Amino acid sequence: MEDRVKPKTLPGFMELLPNEQILFNKMKEKIEKTYQKYGFLPLDTPIIEDAKVLLAKAGGETEKQIYRFEKGENDLALRFDLTVPLAKYVTQYYDKLSFPFKRYQIGKVYRGEKPQRGRYREFYQCDVDIIGDGKLSIINDAELPAIIYDTFKNLGFDDFTICINNRKILNGLFASLELTEESAEILRIIDKIDKIGKEAVRVELAKEIGNKIDTIIEFISIEGNNEDKIEALKSMNIDNDIFQEGLKEIEQLTKFIKIFGVPENYYNIDLTIARGLDYYTGTVYETFLNQYRNLGSICSGGRYDNLAGFYTDRQMPGVGISIGLSRLFFQLIDNNIITADEQSIADVLVVSMSDEYEKVAEIASKLRENGINTQVNIEDQKLGKKFKYADNLNVKYVIVIGEDEIKNNVVSLKNMDTGEQQTITLEDVLKTVNNRH
Amino acid sequence: MEDRVKPKTLPGFMELLPNEQILFNKMKEKIEKTYQKYGFLPLDTPIIEDAKVLLAKAGGETEKQIYRFEKGENDLALRFDLTVPLAKYVTQYYDKLSFPFKRYQIGKVYRGEKPQRGRYREFYQCDVDIIGDGKLSIINDAELPAIIYDTFKNLGFDDFTICINNRKILNGLFASLELTEESAEILRIIDKIDKIGKEAVRVELAKEIGNKIDTIIEFISIEGNNEDKIEALKSMNIDNDIFQEGLKEIEQLTKFIKIFGVPENYYNIDLTIARGLDYYTGTVYETFLNQYRNLGSICSGGRYDNLAGFYTDRQMPGVGISIGLSRLFFQLIDNNIITADEQSIADVLVVSMSDEYEKVAEIASKLRENGINTQVNIEDQKLGKKFKYADNLNVKYVIVIGEDEIKNNVVSLKNMDTGEQQTITLEDVLKTVNNRH
Repeated sequence: MEDRVKPKTLPGFMELLPNEQILFNKMKEKIEKTYQKYGFLPLDTPIIEDAKVLLAKAGGETEKQIYRFEKGENDLALRFDLTVPLAKYVTQYYDKLSFPFKRYQIGKVYRGEKPQRGRYREFYQCDVDIIGDGKLSIINDAELPAIIYDTFKNLGFDDFTICINNRKILNGLFASLELTEESAEILRIIDKIDKIGKEAVRVELAKEIGNKIDTIIEFISIEGNNEDKIEALKSMNIDNDIFQEGLKEIEQLTKFIKIFGVPENYYNIDLTIARGLDYYTGTVYETFLNQYRNLGSICSGGRYDNLAGFYTDRQMPGVGISIGLSRLFFQLIDNNIITADEQSIADVLVVSMSDEYEKVAEIASKLRENGINTQVNIEDQKLGKKFKYADNLNVKYVIVIGEDEIKNNVVSLKNMDTGEQQTITLEDVLKTVNNRH
Repeated sequence: MEDRVKPKTLPGFMELLPNEQILFNKMKEKIEKTYQKYGFLPLDTPIIEDAKVLLAKAGGETEKQIYRFEKGENDLALRFDLTVPLAKYVTQYYDKLSFPFKRYQIGKVYRGEKPQRGRYREFYQCDVDIIGDGKLSIINDAELPAIIYDTFKNLGFDDFTICINNRKILNGLFASLELTEESAEILRIIDKIDKIGKEAVRVELAKEIGNKIDTIIEFISIEGNNEDKIEALKSMNIDNDIFQEGLKEIEQLTKFIKIFGVPENYYNIDLTIARGLDYYTGTVYETFLNQYRNLGSICSGGRYDNLAGFYTDRQMPGVGISIGLSRLFFQLIDNNIITADEQSIADVLVVSMSDEYEKVAEIASKLRENGINTQVNIEDQKLGKKFKYADNLNVKYVIVIGEDEIKNNVVSLKNMDTGEQQTITLEDVLKTVNNRH
């Protein structure tokens, strides 16, 4: 016999057991159906792209993490997000698309990060973006929180907050204080407020910016509901066009989020969020499970002025959000927020007492014709083993066929949840078994 | 401005326009739902695997076509089919799985073939396999044609044939004639029968095997319905155990295919099909669209004695089928067998006469609450341009809001197919627009 290879999956690559996979796929499908409810078009770009195309804008960390390799004469790379392929796509097929171009894409992306618990090298992103041709109304920015709200509601969550901010408010504020160069450092300090408290932030900031601290502290101290915050921002009287533009946008945004059907306790202006990625230029979003704020943002995104500047002269502003589904799924399972224990595909398993396989096939065929997911076990096994099999697969109903059942033209139906067993006609089985399609 | 990169997609990588993508995804979903109807469990293995694991058995053509590269110290490869990852999976998670293990997997695989029209380097395979632990009843082989039948019926096809054969019949026949070594060459010649005719095949065979040709010709001349063919095979009185075993299997198979609900005119014993892959050891399947036989087999598969011999001592027989969806989709579009012209995601587009955006958002929100896929256009555009947009997206209904509509608490609903326009209440819109969810 040839030498055997030990089968193993690479570290950092998610591979699920069937019951987990069923749950994962259900979540993915709910996300997709919600995205479709808002009229977004599906897209499925290649995982492999020309490295030069994919890395047109990338640099630094991204470049290091990327899977890049040669095949023949081609310099290839695996996509590391779904935004660069979107920029490529809208430029390449510009003439064939209708703008605003609304698309969703759900697919795997690749980053060769150091594998850590819950950090994956291959992971699903679920993105929606709206791309304008030249310009794009701010009202689009208000539709995305409705999609976030709807998506997480459909996923079964009730207690979450969509935090919104506008980069123009931050950028304008810093510009008005002549602190533009220090802004990244200031934001880094402010970002620690949840961890170290407001007083420690004040001390650190004072070291950085001295007497300009009062305005910053006034800014990050703004509290109340969204209307209160907008009023407080107005009353700061910041003399900067960018700031005032951002303020006007966030006022429009909060108004329209409500009209798009998001209850007010689900969204919240949070003036301290900025998002790491430097391409966001206006609205930014982060989403938190209120009871699990430590998980970090579970859905983030924002507005960018120019999607495809590295491919084309055309100005294409956009706004989008992304759910990192693989990581989210790991976190939800790991924290017992969801469980895959009871997941199944088949509603019914049909088995026989001994070798009544023809009747098994016949009954299964009739159930399937009636839209019931039906599995057969036609192996030469003891009945007990077949029930164990049904149990392992979390199948709700087992139909058993024996000589008596065939003679009397009935079947024996066992409900695996209750243990209840009935001898009934196939017609009654169809009524009993919930048709879930 | 920085230097621009020309955006392009690599040759051999399928990238679809939105309407085509919608149709592609619908087909993919129909295949998946059908696989689930038979109780198969979903699986989603990584696209990247350890090259040593993935190539444990591969060699020759496969090795040349594979995408293999290094990242850090890792020797990596992209999966080239879904069967090797399945072998890895069932060995690795053996203790946590229930056998027979029935799984489906729909995903992209990678082969660096020379790009040709309709041949892809990245393409979807849609696989179902049943894996036994030690043994696996032949009746499983009869369930797969039922899945093929059901799948292509659900995809909208009516005129196709599932061709079945059994490698044991061929192998036994050749062994009985002491032609085992010549069998590959004989099969190659027989395979040309559709192209060059029976007489030319006879001439070529005579060169190869001299006077043993009579039995071979008798064999390939067997005609009639499935029962006739089985009778003819029996009456050949081939004195070989493997042949007789294959004959018994195909007799069982055809009997059970019928019981599993496949009409007899949809499946057919074809003694000349053998499938290229050398791991098939029993039943083999090919599926043809009768009016487009030139497309080749659109769904193929078979039985293999031992799935994971390169990973484990455990004998795991299996039987499976695969649909190469990317290639099939290309062929169907290319031959005008299907068209993506009318595909859409949104059922309704809501627009305003001028700046009645609040009402647009409100109406859209209500339609979505009622399960209707609804898109908004809230850009500062002329109404004509918005109708053109609806037209491009193949949206069936456009709702227009203007001052009058708001005043009278109605909307204007245009059916884009008929051109008919009504001024009605939102309640009546909900009744009119077909709720497709």
